[in-house]
Amino acid sequence: MTDSGKVYHRSCTGPALQTVEQHAQDQDITLFASCFCPFVQRVWTALEYLEIPYKYYEVDPYQKSQELLNVSPKGLVPALMLNTFNPPRALNESTVILDFLEDIAAKSTHRSLFPPSTDPYAKALVRLQSDHISRTLVPAFYKYLQAQDPEAQISGGKEFHAAIQSLVELFERAEREVGGTGLWVEGGGLGWADVMVAPWIFRATNALKHYRGFEMPRGTKFEAWLGRLFEHPAFKKTCSDEELYLDSYERYAFNRPNTSQVANAINSGRGLP
Amino acid sequence: MTDSGKVYHRSCTGPALQTVEQHAQDQDITLFASCFCPFVQRVWTALEYLEIPYKYYEVDPYQKSQELLNVSPKGLVPALMLNTFNPPRALNESTVILDFLEDIAAKSTHRSLFPPSTDPYAKALVRLQSDHISRTLVPAFYKYLQAQDPEAQISGGKEFHAAIQSLVELFERAEREVGGTGLWVEGGGLGWADVMVAPWIFRATNALKHYRGFEMPRGTKFEAWLGRLFEHPAFKKTCSDEELYLDSYERYAFNRPNTSQVANAINSGRGLP
Ligand SMILES: N[C@@H](CCC(=O)N[C@@H](CS)C(=O)NCC(=O)O)C(=O)O
Ligand SMILES: N[C@@H](CCC(=O)N[C@@H](CS)C(=O)NCC(=O)O)C(=O)O
Repeated sequence: MTDSGKVYHRSCTGPALQTVEQHAQDQDITLFASCFCPFVQRVWTALEYLEIPYKYYEVDPYQKSQELLNVSPKGLVPALMLNTFNPPRALNESTVILDFLEDIAAKSTHRSLFPPSTDPYAKALVRLQSDHISRTLVPAFYKYLQAQDPEAQISGGKEFHAAIQSLVELFERAEREVGGTGLWVEGGGLGWADVMVAPWIFRATNALKHYRGFEMPRGTKFEAWLGRLFEHPAFKKTCSDEELYLDSYERYAFNRPNTSQVANAINSGRGLP
Repeated sequence: MTDSGKVYHRSCTGPALQTVEQHAQDQDITLFASCFCPFVQRVWTALEYLEIPYKYYEVDPYQKSQELLNVSPKGLVPALMLNTFNPPRALNESTVILDFLEDIAAKSTHRSLFPPSTDPYAKALVRLQSDHISRTLVPAFYKYLQAQDPEAQISGGKEFHAAIQSLVELFERAEREVGGTGLWVEGGGLGWADVMVAPWIFRATNALKHYRGFEMPRGTKFEAWLGRLFEHPAFKKTCSDEELYLDSYERYAFNRPNTSQVANAINSGRGLP
């Protein structure tokens, strides 16, 4: 692998491009998005699944416009602009936006990413999965991808692998205790944790595989879940072609000095932005 | 200041001890708690405010019993045991438990820590406050408390101070956009973010003041909020006397090798457990 100096893309390709084209009209909600960004993909997938109307608006978070800073104080994507208010309101942080969309959908489309059960415990198990994804699995992804020396790469791979295993254990616990959550259940609908984790699991099968030789854990149930996740229309519609991800993550894989707040946080041992 | 080798307490004192004594009977919910733990204090305050019946059960998370590991996989407090299920169910992670208690209260006591408004945006602003507390303010507290050399202490103090300022800015934004949230509003009820942050703000006025000479930010509105927070019955009932906190945080302040997962995470630059 040579450092060929590829740069991140500035527009979607493949299935995602088609979706962008279908969401070019003004709507009550504008999604400030970047084609390569996994945090954006969470929100985008939720918008699709919850059937909430939105306009997709591509921005470059590494060249922050005033417009972006107005909706997202640190200039990070994703962010929403809520156009029905005057002055318009804004919202940033992918997990905060997910909760907001869930609340919106409860009042409008009546769709939900949470288990249909009225048992608050089932919902709590999903929040436990989600907490693990945010605080352990996602940081482990970046630490692994940015690791340069072979030993750090090996331990990074192990850590990321273990984080996936722990998620599987949380899925299995939910299966035992409340009959399962999200797509882990055969015939189940897309779930909150599925949406939270899908972008990184997907990038593990392209960027991590390509740059680090990462292999996904095996197992009949795990592979079946993976298949359902990657084939789910709400997710698939937000995916670009593989090349876009390989190009965009090259900078991370060679840990080239860059202005990414994510990359810098990992390099300096701080929490993600 | 000499290192006098004080140890953490094993039972509450002051107002908290009275509350413990009033919650010694079996209930549907058992709170696995440690008297010094701020993450526990979040959950405990919420139980009080939401008026959900519970039994307080003191455990030592540094000497993990099998009983604790059964309800909390990493052996961390807080955890809940839900005794109405057979076999009993368990739940860990303070933020996950808060959401669970909110859902329980919605069905039983009809009390809530979220803004009374039906506007999902008001709720989202609270989640934004809460995200900032979890990912920035709380880690900054520990980094500051454990900093040993003077320069690290100065920058740690600045970082923690800035984190409080950013929270204030989020409170002010909510005031402008939705009329305010939680106790930031004069006459308002205890709010989600108040509960999320109170234990560390409180420890800043005792442990951080004592060991680092920390002074709270000033400002009429800020001081009024602080007053309402510390005087709120649901919070006050969970507070022990100052000595308990000074003793318990001495190990952190001198950064003595110990078995705390929180302390070790900060020392090694990893995310909090
Ligand atoms: N905590 C944020 C993280 C978002 C994030 O890191 N987005 C990246 C793109 S994937 C970004 O905007 N980076 C711009 C920068 O680093 O300045 C969320 O969950 O929304
Ligand atoms: N993320 C956990 C953190 C809880 C936590 O760190 N609790 C500390 C006491 S304040 C603990 O149990 N420490 C035991 C240990 O470090 O092994 C939560 O929010 O509940």
